[in-house]
Amino acid sequence: MIKTIRYNKNTALDEIFPRSQFEYEDINKKVREIIEDVKANGDKALYKYSEMFDVKLESLTVSSEEIEEAYDRIDEEFKEVLLAAAGNIRKFHEKQVRNNFFTNGKDGVLLGQIINPIEKAGIYIPGGTASYPSTVLMNVIPAKIAGVEEIILVSPPNKEGSIEDSILAAAKIAGADRIFKIGGAQSIAALSYGTETIPKVYKITGPGNIYVAMAKKMVYGEVDIDMVAGPSEILVIADENAVPENVAADLLSQAEHDRLAASVLVTTSEEIAEKVKNELVKQLERLPREETAKESLKNNGRIIITETIDEAVKISNEIAPEHLELCVNDPFSILGKIKNAGSIFLGNNTPEALGDYFAGPNHTLPTSGTAKFSSPLSVDDFIKKSSVIYYTKEALEKVKDKIICFAEKEGLNAHAESVRIRFEGGKK
Amino acid sequence: MIKTIRYNKNTALDEIFPRSQFEYEDINKKVREIIEDVKANGDKALYKYSEMFDVKLESLTVSSEEIEEAYDRIDEEFKEVLLAAAGNIRKFHEKQVRNNFFTNGKDGVLLGQIINPIEKAGIYIPGGTASYPSTVLMNVIPAKIAGVEEIILVSPPNKEGSIEDSILAAAKIAGADRIFKIGGAQSIAALSYGTETIPKVYKITGPGNIYVAMAKKMVYGEVDIDMVAGPSEILVIADENAVPENVAADLLSQAEHDRLAASVLVTTSEEIAEKVKNELVKQLERLPREETAKESLKNNGRIIITETIDEAVKISNEIAPEHLELCVNDPFSILGKIKNAGSIFLGNNTPEALGDYFAGPNHTLPTSGTAKFSSPLSVDDFIKKSSVIYYTKEALEKVKDKIICFAEKEGLNAHAESVRIRFEGGKK
Repeated sequence: MIKTIRYNKNTALDEIFPRSQFEYEDINKKVREIIEDVKANGDKALYKYSEMFDVKLESLTVSSEEIEEAYDRIDEEFKEVLLAAAGNIRKFHEKQVRNNFFTNGKDGVLLGQIINPIEKAGIYIPGGTASYPSTVLMNVIPAKIAGVEEIILVSPPNKEGSIEDSILAAAKIAGADRIFKIGGAQSIAALSYGTETIPKVYKITGPGNIYVAMAKKMVYGEVDIDMVAGPSEILVIADENAVPENVAADLLSQAEHDRLAASVLVTTSEEIAEKVKNELVKQLERLPREETAKESLKNNGRIIITETIDEAVKISNEIAPEHLELCVNDPFSILGKIKNAGSIFLGNNTPEALGDYFAGPNHTLPTSGTAKFSSPLSVDDFIKKSSVIYYTKEALEKVKDKIICFAEKEGLNAHAESVRIRFEGGKK
Repeated sequence: MIKTIRYNKNTALDEIFPRSQFEYEDINKKVREIIEDVKANGDKALYKYSEMFDVKLESLTVSSEEIEEAYDRIDEEFKEVLLAAAGNIRKFHEKQVRNNFFTNGKDGVLLGQIINPIEKAGIYIPGGTASYPSTVLMNVIPAKIAGVEEIILVSPPNKEGSIEDSILAAAKIAGADRIFKIGGAQSIAALSYGTETIPKVYKITGPGNIYVAMAKKMVYGEVDIDMVAGPSEILVIADENAVPENVAADLLSQAEHDRLAASVLVTTSEEIAEKVKNELVKQLERLPREETAKESLKNNGRIIITETIDEAVKISNEIAPEHLELCVNDPFSILGKIKNAGSIFLGNNTPEALGDYFAGPNHTLPTSGTAKFSSPLSVDDFIKKSSVIYYTKEALEKVKDKIICFAEKEGLNAHAESVRIRFEGGKK
């Protein structure tokens, strides 16, 4: 079962938490072939790969009738849940919208920063057992709020040649513009280069299997991507006030995702460590995904015992977890010390699942320690900025010698000349 | 010389503006070897490559004495220019600083977004003829304003084993924390994995030659990078009010960078097209970098004549230029139609060189059409966000059934269980 480690200052992070990595190298070649094929042959290649990997299709396009019918088939309770979740996600992400700014300086100078939405975005939604409508909401809604003109959703069809009702219903609620039945590396290639049916987009977001991840990494530069997600993770910081049953349940909610998922408890309390361990054993038995969760805990689960909460925070900042729960007496008293984490859940009544589905903040979060430099998916991912500079002639005249000096020091004489010429011979 | 094209609605963008691309493939293997070597052998590999490519070094570290001496050697006029430019850059980038936000909902719910600086950033500054102190200011200042704790600058040493005075002076003015004499792919590897002397950072920014660009692309994921820059570009939209001498000078200021640089004029006026062409010929003769500029104009320069300004804007939005000048009667009247551009220069008195050196906005801009999804380098590049979620027990109780419903629809029972368990047996 889960390993327990007593932390001391000489403990190297690699020892207490060796991270799993997805392995990409082997499938590199295959993915590159698919991308080149789609780039060269468009729709024809898409139909071929669809038949090869998923199902023989008549059309790549999901019609608006298919979407409406799927929406009508969703039961009322779940429809209400989807609408409520979408409402919360919308409300939170609207707070992320940024304004242009303009500053006015001396002599009529105006400087600014203008926000524009990315015009077209592609969103990948996995099919099969990992087909999650929550992912549709979390990806489409920020794009919609950013003002993306065309949101293209792609997802592999099932054996009947259709996409799950819940995915289509969530896409309708979130506001996707067009939906295509295509998955895998071939769908990433289609979104990156465009085909007869599928428009080229400028950014691709959304999780996927290893082929999708590899394809996204390959097309990065041609289009932008959100991130290449690694295994999902939770780290719980607990003091003696934590509730062992809750902590164990939250660790298991991560462990059930897949065998590479990581659940880590860092606690100052030997008693909590022991009780959580016992609870894990007890609760595991009740889980439909028992085998997956068990293997995940065995391989990547850790209970780390520290002397102080500050040590626990230090470890957490080093690990930079995707999800961080602060199950301590006064969680707000340590919030300001958290440097690196995707999403932070405070107190005993804020389970990770609340954030995965419902609270409003995004559940697409930086994994594998990338919270040291990456952020949750947000409206920012679907906009880009332009700088704006306006100088009057009198403003330019006052600084012209400085610019000319700088340009000549860098040996860029045409740069200097472009300023100088504006003051020769009375040019306006 | 520069090609002139008459635009009509059926003209494909590829015909009017075929973009140059840097070629990476050949050097892929070499760069990978260097990265693996530095990862395995640390400083030893750095000294080896330094001797191989640059100069035999006694120490990788630039001492604080070296920095002070370099600063003292800078002439007073240039020192003042550097300080004035740094002041403007600082002032503009301070406007980009964002605040945390917290929202308070029903039943004590708090949701928020917290900004933290990236803790360590590495900045690459090229050596040799492309050694630009302006680049130091443009990269270090946003990192400093973001609150990066440790800003590490790397730059290849010259044959005397030192870094140019102007680079060191700019680094001091901008506030770099440590400076190392190392360049090329080996310096990117050192920043990504750390060596005995050089600390591992979480993000690397700054321009570089093809080896540096390739290395940045390879380490992306292990650390974050700013972008892989392509050739530099300017697009000028001009109506009959433009001043041909100014437009030609601005096109040349781009063309002098290198042979792949691209200068494009889109104009509604045949007369302006003709006059700019003549001016280019005339002004070229005066340039020290005449050969480079001439070849750049011949290969990648274009004059495109359109019927209307709206057509010109449409072409510009398709090209998504790094630098865009609006040399038209009322530039603000078309600013709102510009969707894709790195930096926008308005009117006849705002030459690109003003922005390259002095105005304040960043000169590190998206190239190769990536302005469709990327932004100028900014304070945003040196921060990351964390979401914060706090629910009270009463708040969770009201939504628990919805979360349980959602989780069970997705087949994630441990997620459902983690909510349910909080309301069993009176757990606090």
